Amino acid sequence: MGIDVGGTNVKMGIVDAETGRITSFYSHDTASWRSSGHFLQSLGDAIALKLAEFPNVKKVGIGVPGLINRSRTKLLEITAIPEINGADAVPDLKARFPEHDFFLENDANAAALGEYYFGEEKLPEDYIFVTLGTGVGGAAIIDKKVFKGGGGNAMEPGHVPSINGKVLERNIGKKELLEMANQMRAEYTGKTQLPADGTISTTGMVAAAGAGDDLALRIFDKMGTLLGEGLVSMVRILDITTILIGGGLSASFEYILPSLERSLNYWLTPYYLNTLSIKRATLANDAGLLGAASLCFE
Amino acid sequence: MGIDVGGTNVKMGIVDAETGRITSFYSHDTASWRSSGHFLQSLGDAIALKLAEFPNVKKVGIGVPGLINRSRTKLLEITAIPEINGADAVPDLKARFPEHDFFLENDANAAALGEYYFGEEKLPEDYIFVTLGTGVGGAAIIDKKVFKGGGGNAMEPGHVPSINGKVLERNIGKKELLEMANQMRAEYTGKTQLPADGTISTTGMVAAAGAGDDLALRIFDKMGTLLGEGLVSMVRILDITTILIGGGLSASFEYILPSLERSLNYWLTPYYLNTLSIKRATLANDAGLLGAASLCFE
Repeated sequence: MGIDVGGTNVKMGIVDAETGRITSFYSHDTASWRSSGHFLQSLGDAIALKLAEFPNVKKVGIGVPGLINRSRTKLLEITAIPEINGADAVPDLKARFPEHDFFLENDANAAALGEYYFGEEKLPEDYIFVTLGTGVGGAAIIDKKVFKGGGGNAMEPGHVPSINGKVLERNIGKKELLEMANQMRAEYTGKTQLPADGTISTTGMVAAAGAGDDLALRIFDKMGTLLGEGLVSMVRILDITTILIGGGLSASFEYILPSLERSLNYWLTPYYLNTLSIKRATLANDAGLLGAASLCFE
Repeated sequence: MGIDVGGTNVKMGIVDAETGRITSFYSHDTASWRSSGHFLQSLGDAIALKLAEFPNVKKVGIGVPGLINRSRTKLLEITAIPEINGADAVPDLKARFPEHDFFLENDANAAALGEYYFGEEKLPEDYIFVTLGTGVGGAAIIDKKVFKGGGGNAMEPGHVPSINGKVLERNIGKKELLEMANQMRAEYTGKTQLPADGTISTTGMVAAAGAGDDLALRIFDKMGTLLGEGLVSMVRILDITTILIGGGLSASFEYILPSLERSLNYWLTPYYLNTLSIKRATLANDAGLLGAASLCFE
Protein backbone atom coordinates (compact mmCIF):
# COMPACT_ATOMS: atom_id res chain seq x y z
CA MET A 1 0.00 0.00 0.00
CA GLY A 2 1.19 3.49 -0.81
CA ILE A 3 0.19 6.74 0.90
CA ASP A 4 1.10 10.11 -0.53
CA VAL A 5 0.60 12.76 2.14
CA GLY A 6 0.37 16.10 0.37
CA GLY A 7 -0.43 19.63 1.41
CA THR A 8 -3.72 19.50 -0.52
CA ASN A 9 -4.71 15.85 -0.55
CA VAL A 10 -3.76 12.60 1.09
CA LYS A 11 -3.90 9.84 -1.50
CA MET A 12 -3.70 6.14 -0.87
CA GLY A 13 -4.07 2.98 -2.84
CA ILE A 14 -3.15 -0.65 -3.11
CA VAL A 15 -0.32 -1.09 -5.58
CA ASP A 16 0.40 -4.28 -7.46
CA ALA A 17 4.08 -4.97 -6.81
CA GLU A 18 4.58 -6.39 -10.29
CA THR A 19 2.67 -4.02 -12.51
CA GLY A 20 2.35 -0.86 -10.42
CA ARG A 21 -1.39 -0.89 -11.07
CA ILE A 22 -3.23 1.13 -8.43
CA THR A 23 -6.50 -0.23 -7.10
CA SER A 24 -8.85 0.90 -4.37
CA PHE A 25 -7.62 4.47 -4.79
CA TYR A 26 -8.75 6.87 -2.08
CA SER A 27 -8.11 10.57 -1.72
CA HIS A 28 -9.01 12.79 1.21
CA ASP A 29 -8.49 16.53 1.46
CA THR A 30 -5.72 17.43 3.84
CA ALA A 31 -7.44 20.52 5.24
CA SER A 32 -10.40 18.77 6.88
CA TRP A 33 -8.18 16.23 8.64
CA ARG A 34 -6.03 19.12 9.80
CA SER A 35 -8.96 21.14 11.08
CA SER A 36 -10.19 18.14 13.09
CA GLY A 37 -7.07 18.58 15.17
CA HIS A 38 -6.31 14.88 14.82
CA PHE A 39 -4.57 14.56 11.51
CA LEU A 40 -2.56 11.46 12.31
CA GLN A 41 -5.50 9.81 14.03
CA SER A 42 -7.60 10.38 10.91
CA LEU A 43 -4.85 9.07 8.71
CA GLY A 44 -4.61 6.01 10.94
CA ASP A 45 -8.37 5.45 10.67
CA ALA A 46 -8.20 5.58 6.89
CA ILE A 47 -5.30 3.11 6.97
CA ALA A 48 -7.29 0.82 9.28
CA LEU A 49 -10.19 0.70 6.81
CA LYS A 50 -7.93 -0.15 3.90
CA LEU A 51 -5.99 -2.80 5.80
CA ALA A 52 -9.22 -4.44 6.97
CA GLU A 53 -10.34 -4.55 3.35
CA PHE A 54 -7.03 -6.00 2.12
CA PRO A 55 -5.79 -8.51 4.69
CA ASN A 56 -2.96 -9.64 2.40
CA VAL A 57 -1.36 -6.19 2.49
CA LYS A 58 1.37 -6.18 5.14
CA LYS A 59 3.55 -3.27 4.09
CA VAL A 60 2.68 0.41 3.91
CA GLY A 61 4.89 3.08 2.39
CA ILE A 62 4.26 6.72 3.26
CA GLY A 63 5.66 9.78 1.52
CA VAL A 64 5.55 13.13 3.34
CA PRO A 65 6.34 16.63 2.08
CA GLY A 66 9.18 17.63 4.37
CA LEU A 67 12.06 16.68 6.60
CA ILE A 68 12.14 13.43 8.58
CA ASN A 69 14.78 11.98 10.86
CA ARG A 70 17.61 9.90 9.55
CA SER A 71 16.22 6.61 10.79
CA ARG A 72 12.96 7.40 8.97
CA THR A 73 10.60 7.07 11.93
CA LYS A 74 9.80 10.63 12.95
CA LEU A 75 8.36 13.73 11.27
CA LEU A 76 10.62 16.74 11.74
CA GLU A 77 9.49 19.61 9.58
CA ILE A 78 6.38 19.15 7.47
CA THR A 79 5.82 22.74 6.41
CA ALA A 80 2.35 22.15 4.96
CA ILE A 81 1.08 20.32 8.08
CA PRO A 82 3.21 21.75 10.89
CA GLU A 83 1.04 20.36 13.71
CA ILE A 84 2.42 16.88 13.02
CA ASN A 85 6.04 18.00 13.40
CA GLY A 86 7.82 15.91 16.00
CA ALA A 87 5.38 13.00 15.76
CA ASP A 88 6.91 9.52 16.01
CA ALA A 89 4.84 8.46 13.04
CA VAL A 90 6.28 5.00 12.42
CA PRO A 91 6.36 3.75 16.05
CA ASP A 92 2.84 5.12 16.59
CA LEU A 93 1.48 3.35 13.51
CA LYS A 94 3.33 0.16 14.43
CA ALA A 95 1.74 0.27 17.90
CA ARG A 96 -1.69 0.51 16.33
CA PHE A 97 -0.97 -2.02 13.58
CA PRO A 98 1.57 -4.43 15.05
CA GLU A 99 1.19 -6.92 12.19
CA HIS A 100 2.21 -4.39 9.57
CA ASP A 101 5.42 -2.67 8.54
CA PHE A 102 5.53 1.04 7.77
CA PHE A 103 8.14 2.80 5.65
CA LEU A 104 8.43 6.57 5.86
CA GLU A 105 10.25 8.79 3.40
CA ASN A 106 10.36 12.32 2.09
CA ASP A 107 7.99 12.53 -0.89
CA ALA A 108 10.61 13.60 -3.47
CA ASN A 109 12.84 10.72 -2.39
CA ALA A 110 9.90 8.33 -2.61
CA ALA A 111 8.96 9.60 -6.07
CA ALA A 112 12.54 9.07 -7.20
CA LEU A 113 12.54 5.49 -5.96
CA GLY A 114 9.17 4.85 -7.56
CA GLU A 115 10.71 5.48 -10.98
CA TYR A 116 13.01 2.51 -10.40
CA TYR A 117 10.27 0.04 -9.56
CA PHE A 118 7.36 1.37 -11.56
CA GLY A 119 8.76 3.65 -14.27
CA GLU A 120 8.23 2.84 -17.92
CA GLU A 121 11.90 2.41 -18.65
CA LYS A 122 14.40 0.11 -16.99
CA LEU A 123 16.71 2.25 -14.86
CA PRO A 124 20.15 1.47 -13.47
CA GLU A 125 20.52 1.07 -9.69
CA ASP A 126 22.07 4.53 -9.34
CA TYR A 127 20.53 7.71 -10.65
CA ILE A 128 19.94 11.35 -9.89
CA PHE A 129 16.33 12.53 -9.91
CA VAL A 130 15.61 16.22 -10.33
CA THR A 131 12.18 17.82 -10.27
CA LEU A 132 11.55 21.11 -12.02
CA GLY A 133 8.60 23.06 -10.68
CA THR A 134 8.00 25.84 -8.22
CA GLY A 135 11.42 24.95 -6.91
CA VAL A 136 14.11 22.57 -8.04
CA GLY A 137 13.96 19.45 -5.90
CA GLY A 138 15.40 16.04 -6.17
CA ALA A 139 16.89 12.91 -4.80
CA ALA A 140 19.59 10.39 -5.52
CA ILE A 141 19.07 6.65 -5.67
CA ILE A 142 22.20 4.62 -4.96
CA ASP A 143 22.11 0.81 -4.95
CA LYS A 144 18.35 0.99 -5.46
CA LYS A 145 18.02 2.86 -2.17
CA VAL A 146 17.28 6.46 -1.33
CA PHE A 147 20.57 8.23 -0.62
CA LYS A 148 20.19 9.86 2.78
CA GLY A 149 23.60 11.52 3.07
CA GLY A 150 24.99 12.42 6.45
CA GLY A 151 22.13 14.10 8.27
CA GLY A 152 19.39 12.22 6.47
CA ASN A 153 18.36 15.01 4.12
CA ALA A 154 20.76 14.74 1.22
CA MET A 155 20.20 16.19 -2.22
CA GLU A 156 19.01 19.73 -2.36
CA PRO A 157 19.80 20.31 -6.03
CA GLY A 158 17.86 23.55 -5.98
CA HIS A 159 20.25 25.00 -3.43
CA VAL A 160 23.64 24.59 -5.04
CA PRO A 161 25.30 27.89 -5.96
CA SER A 162 24.36 29.21 -9.40
CA ILE A 163 24.91 32.53 -11.19
CA ASN A 164 24.11 36.04 -9.94
CA GLY A 165 24.97 35.08 -6.37
CA LYS A 166 21.83 32.97 -6.20
CA VAL A 167 21.13 29.30 -5.64
CA LEU A 168 19.90 27.32 -8.62
CA GLU A 169 16.18 27.42 -7.89
CA ARG A 170 16.29 31.19 -7.40
CA ASN A 171 17.37 31.31 -11.04
CA ILE A 172 15.26 28.57 -12.66
CA GLY A 173 12.40 27.91 -10.25
CA LYS A 174 9.03 28.56 -11.90
CA LYS A 175 8.64 32.13 -10.66
CA GLU A 176 12.23 33.08 -11.45
CA LEU A 177 12.05 31.41 -14.85
CA LEU A 178 8.98 33.50 -15.71
CA GLU A 179 10.70 36.67 -14.48
CA MET A 180 13.65 35.85 -16.70
CA ALA A 181 11.30 35.11 -19.60
CA ASN A 182 9.45 38.41 -19.23
CA GLN A 183 12.78 40.21 -18.98
CA MET A 184 14.09 38.53 -22.12
CA ARG A 185 10.78 39.27 -23.85
CA ALA A 186 11.15 42.97 -23.02
CA GLU A 187 14.58 43.06 -24.61
CA TYR A 188 13.66 40.89 -27.58
CA THR A 189 13.16 42.58 -30.94
CA GLY A 190 12.51 39.51 -33.11
CA LYS A 191 9.24 37.76 -33.88
CA THR A 192 7.72 35.73 -31.04
CA GLN A 193 4.34 34.50 -29.91
CA LEU A 194 5.14 35.17 -26.26
CA PRO A 195 3.11 38.08 -24.81
CA ALA A 196 4.94 41.35 -24.10
CA ASP A 197 2.71 42.37 -21.20
CA GLY A 198 4.47 40.36 -18.51
CA THR A 199 2.00 37.47 -18.63
CA ILE A 200 4.20 34.72 -20.04
CA SER A 201 3.26 31.32 -18.61
CA THR A 202 5.26 28.12 -18.57
CA THR A 203 2.62 26.30 -20.61
CA GLY A 204 2.72 29.17 -23.10
CA MET A 205 6.49 28.85 -23.33
CA VAL A 206 6.35 25.10 -23.88
CA ALA A 207 3.72 25.56 -26.59
CA ALA A 208 5.75 28.32 -28.25
CA ALA A 209 8.95 26.27 -28.12
CA GLY A 210 7.04 23.37 -29.69
CA ALA A 211 6.07 25.72 -32.54
CA GLY A 212 9.73 26.67 -33.01
CA ASP A 213 9.46 30.10 -31.38
CA ASP A 214 13.01 31.46 -31.21
CA LEU A 215 12.62 33.41 -27.96
CA ALA A 216 10.95 30.52 -26.13
CA LEU A 217 13.79 28.25 -27.25
CA ARG A 218 16.34 30.78 -26.04
CA ILE A 219 14.73 30.91 -22.61
CA PHE A 220 14.80 27.13 -22.29
CA ASP A 221 18.36 27.14 -23.60
CA LYS A 222 19.35 29.42 -20.73
CA MET A 223 17.45 27.24 -18.25
CA GLY A 224 19.16 24.09 -19.50
CA THR A 225 22.59 25.68 -19.24
CA LEU A 226 22.05 26.68 -15.62
CA LEU A 227 20.52 23.32 -14.71
CA GLY A 228 23.46 21.58 -16.39
CA GLU A 229 26.02 23.42 -14.28
CA GLY A 230 24.18 22.41 -11.12
CA LEU A 231 24.00 18.81 -12.28
CA VAL A 232 27.75 18.72 -12.90
CA SER A 233 28.36 19.18 -9.19
CA MET A 234 26.03 16.30 -8.41
CA VAL A 235 27.65 14.01 -10.98
CA ARG A 236 31.13 14.82 -9.64
CA ILE A 237 30.19 14.41 -6.01
CA LEU A 238 28.01 11.32 -6.36
CA ASP A 239 29.64 9.60 -9.36
CA ILE A 240 26.26 8.98 -10.93
CA THR A 241 25.64 9.49 -14.64
CA THR A 242 21.99 8.67 -15.14
CA ILE A 243 19.84 11.74 -14.64
CA LEU A 244 16.07 11.64 -14.52
CA ILE A 245 14.09 14.86 -14.87
CA GLY A 246 10.57 15.14 -13.51
CA GLY A 247 8.20 17.74 -12.14
CA GLY A 248 5.68 19.96 -13.92
CA LEU A 249 8.29 21.94 -15.81
CA SER A 250 9.78 18.76 -17.25
CA ALA A 251 7.20 19.36 -19.99
CA SER A 252 10.03 21.49 -21.37
CA PHE A 253 12.38 18.48 -21.37
CA GLU A 254 13.12 18.37 -25.08
CA TYR A 255 13.76 22.12 -25.21
CA ILE A 256 16.19 22.26 -22.32
CA LEU A 257 17.97 19.04 -23.31
CA PRO A 258 20.32 20.49 -25.99
CA SER A 259 21.81 23.15 -23.71
CA LEU A 260 21.80 20.76 -20.75
CA GLU A 261 23.89 18.30 -22.74
CA ARG A 262 26.15 21.09 -24.00
CA SER A 263 26.76 22.17 -20.43
CA LEU A 264 27.51 18.64 -19.22
CA ASN A 265 29.82 18.05 -22.19
CA TYR A 266 31.71 21.21 -21.34
CA TRP A 267 32.29 20.34 -17.69
CA LEU A 268 32.58 16.57 -17.56
CA THR A 269 35.28 14.14 -18.70
CA PRO A 270 34.89 10.93 -20.73
CA TYR A 271 34.80 8.85 -17.53
CA TYR A 272 31.36 10.35 -16.90
CA LEU A 273 30.25 11.18 -20.44
CA ASN A 274 30.72 7.61 -21.64
CA THR A 275 27.77 6.50 -19.53
CA LEU A 276 25.84 9.76 -19.29
CA SER A 277 22.12 9.35 -19.81
CA ILE A 278 19.49 12.04 -19.35
CA LYS A 279 15.88 10.91 -19.37
CA ARG A 280 12.50 12.28 -18.54
CA ALA A 281 10.74 10.75 -15.54
CA THR A 282 7.70 8.70 -16.54
CA LEU A 283 5.36 8.37 -13.56
CA ALA A 284 3.81 11.87 -13.71
CA ASN A 285 0.66 12.16 -11.58
CA ASP A 286 1.02 8.78 -9.92
CA ALA A 287 4.64 9.43 -8.87
CA GLY A 288 3.75 10.24 -5.27
CA LEU A 289 1.59 7.22 -4.58
CA LEU A 290 3.72 4.73 -6.53
CA GLY A 291 6.82 6.20 -4.94
CA ALA A 292 5.37 5.69 -1.48
CA ALA A 293 4.45 2.09 -2.35
CA SER A 294 7.95 1.46 -3.69
CA LEU A 295 9.35 2.11 -0.20
CA CYS A 296 7.98 -1.31 0.74
CA PHE A 297 10.65 -2.90 -1.46
CA GLU A 298 13.47 -1.53 0.66
CA MET B 1 48.77 -3.39 8.99
CA GLY B 2 48.61 -0.39 6.69
CA ILE B 3 50.18 0.00 3.25
CA ASP B 4 50.33 3.33 1.47
CA VAL B 5 51.15 2.75 -2.19
CA GLY B 6 52.44 6.02 -3.57
CA GLY B 7 53.97 7.13 -6.83
CA THR B 8 57.32 7.72 -5.10
CA ASN B 9 57.36 5.30 -2.16
CA VAL B 10 55.43 2.35 -0.86
CA LYS B 11 55.16 2.65 2.92
CA MET B 12 53.96 0.01 5.30
CA GLY B 13 53.75 -0.45 9.01
CA ILE B 14 51.99 -2.18 11.84
CA VAL B 15 49.46 0.14 13.40
CA ASP B 16 48.18 -0.15 16.93
CA ALA B 17 44.39 -0.13 16.59
CA GLU B 18 43.95 1.80 19.83
CA THR B 19 46.65 4.44 19.67
CA GLY B 20 47.53 4.65 15.99
CA ARG B 21 51.18 4.18 16.87
CA ILE B 22 53.14 2.91 13.87
CA THR B 23 55.79 0.26 14.46
CA SER B 24 58.00 -1.73 12.14
CA PHE B 25 57.79 1.02 9.56
CA TYR B 26 59.14 0.10 6.15
CA SER B 27 59.42 2.19 3.01
CA HIS B 28 60.51 1.07 -0.42
CA ASP B 29 60.91 3.22 -3.49
CA THR B 30 58.20 2.65 -6.03
CA ALA B 31 60.48 2.98 -9.07
CA SER B 32 62.67 -0.06 -8.42
CA TRP B 33 59.69 -2.36 -7.87
CA ARG B 34 58.22 -0.96 -11.06
CA SER B 35 61.40 -1.49 -13.07
CA SER B 36 61.58 -5.11 -11.91
CA GLY B 37 58.44 -5.65 -13.96
CA HIS B 38 56.83 -7.40 -11.00
CA PHE B 39 55.46 -4.62 -8.87
CA LEU B 40 52.64 -6.57 -7.27
CA GLN B 41 54.86 -9.62 -6.73
CA SER B 42 57.41 -7.44 -4.93
CA LEU B 43 54.67 -5.84 -2.87
CA GLY B 44 53.41 -9.30 -1.98
CA ASP B 45 56.91 -10.38 -0.93
CA ALA B 46 57.22 -7.38 1.37
CA ILE B 47 53.80 -8.18 2.84
CA ALA B 48 54.87 -11.80 3.36
CA LEU B 49 57.91 -10.72 5.36
CA LYS B 50 55.87 -8.45 7.59
CA LEU B 51 53.12 -10.99 8.17
CA ALA B 52 55.67 -13.66 9.08
CA GLU B 53 57.14 -11.25 11.59
CA PHE B 54 53.73 -10.34 13.08
CA PRO B 55 51.61 -13.49 13.19
CA ASN B 56 48.88 -11.69 15.15
CA VAL B 57 48.19 -9.30 12.27
CA LYS B 58 45.26 -10.65 10.27
CA LYS B 59 44.04 -7.57 8.44
CA VAL B 60 45.84 -5.45 5.86
CA GLY B 61 44.55 -2.14 4.51
CA ILE B 62 45.99 -0.80 1.26
CA GLY B 63 45.63 2.71 -0.14
CA VAL B 64 46.36 3.28 -3.83
CA PRO B 65 46.62 6.53 -5.78
CA GLY B 66 43.88 6.11 -8.35
CA LEU B 67 40.60 4.56 -9.40
CA ILE B 68 39.50 1.15 -8.18
CA ASN B 69 36.35 -0.80 -8.84
CA ARG B 70 33.24 -0.35 -6.79
CA SER B 71 33.60 -3.59 -4.88
CA ARG B 72 37.16 -2.56 -3.93
CA THR B 73 38.96 -5.60 -5.28
CA LYS B 74 40.50 -4.46 -8.55
CA LEU B 75 42.86 -1.68 -9.66
CA LEU B 76 41.39 0.31 -12.53
CA GLU B 77 43.44 3.40 -13.21
CA ILE B 78 46.58 3.93 -11.14
CA THR B 79 48.15 6.75 -13.14
CA ALA B 80 51.50 6.62 -11.34
CA ILE B 81 51.88 2.84 -11.77
CA PRO B 82 49.88 2.09 -14.91
CA GLU B 83 51.26 -1.43 -15.39
CA ILE B 84 49.15 -2.63 -12.45
CA ASN B 85 45.91 -1.34 -13.99
CA GLY B 86 43.38 -4.14 -14.27
CA ALA B 87 45.02 -6.32 -11.61
CA ASP B 88 42.66 -8.20 -9.30
CA ALA B 89 44.72 -7.08 -6.34
CA VAL B 90 42.54 -8.31 -3.49
CA PRO B 91 41.71 -11.79 -4.84
CA ASP B 92 45.37 -12.28 -5.81
CA LEU B 93 46.59 -11.34 -2.32
CA LYS B 94 43.89 -13.47 -0.72
CA ALA B 95 45.04 -16.44 -2.81
CA ARG B 96 48.59 -15.97 -1.57
CA PHE B 97 47.58 -15.17 2.03
CA PRO B 98 44.35 -17.11 2.61
CA GLU B 99 44.42 -16.51 6.38
CA HIS B 100 44.40 -12.74 5.97
CA ASP B 101 41.87 -10.13 4.92
CA PHE B 102 42.79 -7.30 2.57
CA PHE B 103 40.99 -3.97 2.27
CA LEU B 104 41.64 -1.83 -0.78
CA GLU B 105 40.74 1.84 -1.14
CA ASN B 106 41.70 4.98 -3.00
CA ASP B 107 44.38 6.77 -0.98
CA ALA B 108 42.44 10.02 -0.48
CA ASN B 109 39.45 8.05 0.76
CA ALA B 110 41.69 6.05 3.08
CA ALA B 111 43.33 9.21 4.43
CA ALA B 112 39.89 10.66 5.11
CA LEU B 113 38.83 7.58 7.05
CA GLY B 114 42.11 7.58 8.98
CA GLU B 115 41.19 10.94 10.47
CA TYR B 116 38.17 9.32 12.08
CA TYR B 117 40.08 6.51 13.76
CA PHE B 118 43.44 8.09 14.38
CA GLY B 119 42.99 11.86 14.19
CA GLU B 120 43.73 14.03 17.21
CA GLU B 121 40.18 15.26 17.54
CA LYS B 122 37.01 13.24 17.95
CA LEU B 123 35.08 13.48 14.68
CA PRO B 124 31.41 12.81 13.98
CA GLU B 125 30.51 9.79 11.84
CA ASP B 126 29.86 11.97 8.79
CA TYR B 127 32.27 14.48 7.38
CA ILE B 128 33.68 15.93 4.20
CA PHE B 129 37.44 15.75 3.76
CA VAL B 130 39.11 18.09 1.29
CA THR B 131 42.80 18.14 0.45
CA LEU B 132 44.43 21.28 -0.87
CA GLY B 133 47.59 20.70 -2.86
CA THR B 134 48.58 20.33 -6.49
CA GLY B 135 44.91 19.64 -7.05
CA VAL B 136 41.86 19.76 -4.83
CA GLY B 137 40.97 16.24 -3.79
CA GLY B 138 38.77 14.74 -1.19
CA ALA B 139 36.38 12.20 0.13
CA ALA B 140 33.25 11.91 2.19
CA ILE B 141 32.83 9.69 5.20
CA ILE B 142 29.22 8.71 5.91
CA ASP B 143 28.36 6.43 8.82
CA LYS B 144 32.08 5.94 9.47
CA LYS B 145 32.45 4.49 5.98
CA VAL B 146 33.98 5.81 2.78
CA PHE B 147 31.18 7.16 0.60
CA LYS B 148 31.55 5.45 -2.77
CA GLY B 149 28.69 7.06 -4.62
CA GLY B 150 27.14 5.37 -7.63
CA GLY B 151 30.10 4.25 -9.73
CA GLY B 152 32.46 3.83 -6.80
CA ASN B 153 34.46 7.02 -7.31
CA ALA B 154 32.42 9.67 -5.57
CA MET B 155 33.72 13.03 -4.40
CA GLU B 156 35.77 14.96 -6.86
CA PRO B 157 35.60 18.30 -5.08
CA GLY B 158 38.27 19.72 -7.35
CA HIS B 159 36.02 19.23 -10.36
CA VAL B 160 32.85 21.06 -9.43
CA PRO B 161 32.18 24.15 -11.56
CA SER B 162 33.82 27.32 -10.26
CA ILE B 163 34.34 30.80 -11.73
CA ASN B 164 35.84 31.75 -15.10
CA GLY B 165 34.34 28.68 -16.75
CA LYS B 166 36.82 26.49 -14.87
CA VAL B 167 36.50 23.70 -12.34
CA LEU B 168 37.55 24.49 -8.78
CA GLU B 169 41.07 23.06 -8.88
CA ARG B 170 41.84 24.95 -12.09
CA ASN B 171 41.25 28.08 -9.99
CA ILE B 172 42.79 27.15 -6.62
CA GLY B 173 45.11 24.21 -7.29
CA LYS B 174 48.69 25.02 -6.34
CA LYS B 175 49.82 26.11 -9.81
CA GLU B 176 46.70 28.18 -10.46
CA LEU B 177 46.86 29.73 -7.00
CA LEU B 178 50.42 30.88 -7.67
CA GLU B 179 49.39 32.26 -11.07
CA MET B 180 46.62 34.20 -9.39
CA ALA B 181 49.05 35.38 -6.71
CA ASN B 182 51.61 36.62 -9.22
CA GLN B 183 48.83 38.33 -11.16
CA MET B 184 47.49 40.04 -8.04
CA ARG B 185 51.07 40.98 -7.10
CA ALA B 186 51.56 42.66 -10.50
CA GLU B 187 48.45 44.78 -9.96
CA TYR B 188 49.15 45.52 -6.30
CA THR B 189 50.46 48.95 -5.38
CA GLY B 190 50.59 48.60 -1.59
CA LYS B 191 53.37 47.34 0.62
CA THR B 192 54.00 43.58 0.53
CA GLN B 193 56.80 41.14 1.14
CA LEU B 194 55.76 38.95 -1.78
CA PRO B 195 58.25 39.10 -4.67
CA ALA B 196 57.23 40.96 -7.84
CA ASP B 197 59.26 38.81 -10.20
CA GLY B 198 56.77 35.99 -10.59
CA THR B 199 58.44 33.74 -8.02
CA ILE B 200 55.81 33.72 -5.28
CA SER B 201 55.71 30.35 -3.49
CA THR B 202 53.00 28.91 -1.31
CA THR B 203 55.32 28.71 1.69
CA GLY B 204 56.23 32.35 1.08
CA MET B 205 52.55 33.27 1.00
CA VAL B 206 51.82 31.40 4.23
CA ALA B 207 54.77 33.12 5.93
CA ALA B 208 53.71 36.52 4.62
CA ALA B 209 50.11 35.99 5.73
CA GLY B 210 51.41 35.00 9.16
CA ALA B 211 53.26 38.31 9.30
CA GLY B 212 50.04 40.16 8.45
CA ASP B 213 50.93 40.89 4.82
CA ASP B 214 47.86 42.47 3.26
CA LEU B 215 48.34 41.05 -0.24
CA ALA B 216 49.01 37.51 0.99
CA LEU B 217 45.86 37.71 3.09
CA ARG B 218 43.90 38.95 0.08
CA ILE B 219 45.07 36.01 -2.00
CA PHE B 220 44.02 33.52 0.68
CA ASP B 221 40.75 35.42 1.06
CA LYS B 222 40.03 34.82 -2.61
CA MET B 223 41.02 31.18 -2.29
CA GLY B 224 38.73 30.66 0.71
CA THR B 225 35.81 32.27 -1.09
CA LEU B 226 36.14 29.97 -4.10
CA LEU B 227 36.68 26.90 -1.92
CA GLY B 228 33.62 27.87 0.12
CA GLU B 229 31.36 27.99 -2.95
CA GLY B 230 32.51 24.53 -3.95
CA LEU B 231 31.92 23.22 -0.45
CA VAL B 232 28.37 24.58 -0.44
CA SER B 233 27.46 22.17 -3.24
CA MET B 234 28.89 19.28 -1.24
CA VAL B 235 27.06 20.27 1.94
CA ARG B 236 23.75 20.60 0.06
CA ILE B 237 24.13 17.36 -1.85
CA LEU B 238 25.49 15.23 1.01
CA ASP B 239 23.86 16.89 4.04
CA ILE B 240 27.14 16.89 5.91
CA THR B 241 28.30 19.87 7.95
CA THR B 242 31.66 18.84 9.33
CA ILE B 243 34.44 19.77 6.93
CA LEU B 244 38.02 18.66 7.39
CA ILE B 245 40.76 20.35 5.39
CA GLY B 246 44.06 18.60 4.74
CA GLY B 247 46.84 18.50 2.16
CA GLY B 248 50.00 20.58 1.92
CA LEU B 249 48.21 23.85 1.28
CA SER B 250 46.17 23.41 4.45
CA ALA B 251 49.13 25.23 6.03
CA SER B 252 47.08 28.26 4.95
CA PHE B 253 44.08 27.04 6.96
CA GLU B 254 43.79 30.00 9.33
CA TYR B 255 44.11 32.50 6.46
CA ILE B 256 41.47 30.97 4.23
CA LEU B 257 39.07 30.25 7.11
CA PRO B 258 37.50 33.74 7.42
CA SER B 259 36.45 33.96 3.78
CA LEU B 260 35.53 30.28 3.72
CA GLU B 261 33.15 30.85 6.61
CA ARG B 262 31.81 34.04 5.01
CA SER B 263 31.08 32.12 1.83
CA LEU B 264 29.33 29.27 3.67
CA ASN B 265 27.33 31.75 5.73
CA TYR B 266 26.19 33.47 2.56
CA TRP B 267 24.99 30.32 0.81
CA LEU B 268 23.76 28.05 3.60
CA THR B 269 20.69 28.15 5.83
CA PRO B 270 20.50 27.68 9.62
CA TYR B 271 19.69 23.97 9.18
CA TYR B 272 23.29 23.53 8.06
CA LEU B 273 24.98 26.45 9.81
CA ASN B 274 23.78 25.34 13.25
CA THR B 275 26.08 22.35 13.09
CA LEU B 276 28.73 23.62 10.69
CA SER B 277 32.26 22.84 11.78
CA ILE B 278 35.41 23.45 9.74
CA LYS B 279 38.60 21.88 11.05
CA ARG B 280 42.08 21.22 9.88
CA ALA B 281 43.04 17.56 9.35
CA THR B 282 45.56 16.35 11.93
CA LEU B 283 47.37 13.30 10.56
CA ALA B 284 49.74 15.11 8.17
CA ASN B 285 52.59 12.85 6.97
CA ASP B 286 51.18 9.67 8.45
CA ALA B 287 47.76 10.18 6.87
CA GLY B 288 48.37 7.67 4.07
CA LEU B 289 49.61 4.81 6.21
CA LEU B 290 47.18 5.35 9.07
CA GLY B 291 44.37 5.79 6.56
CA ALA B 292 45.23 2.47 4.94
CA ALA B 293 45.30 0.78 8.33
CA SER B 294 41.94 2.30 9.24
CA LEU B 295 40.35 0.37 6.35
CA CYS B 296 40.68 -2.73 8.54
CA PHE B 297 37.98 -1.32 10.81
CA GLU B 298 35.34 -1.39 8.08
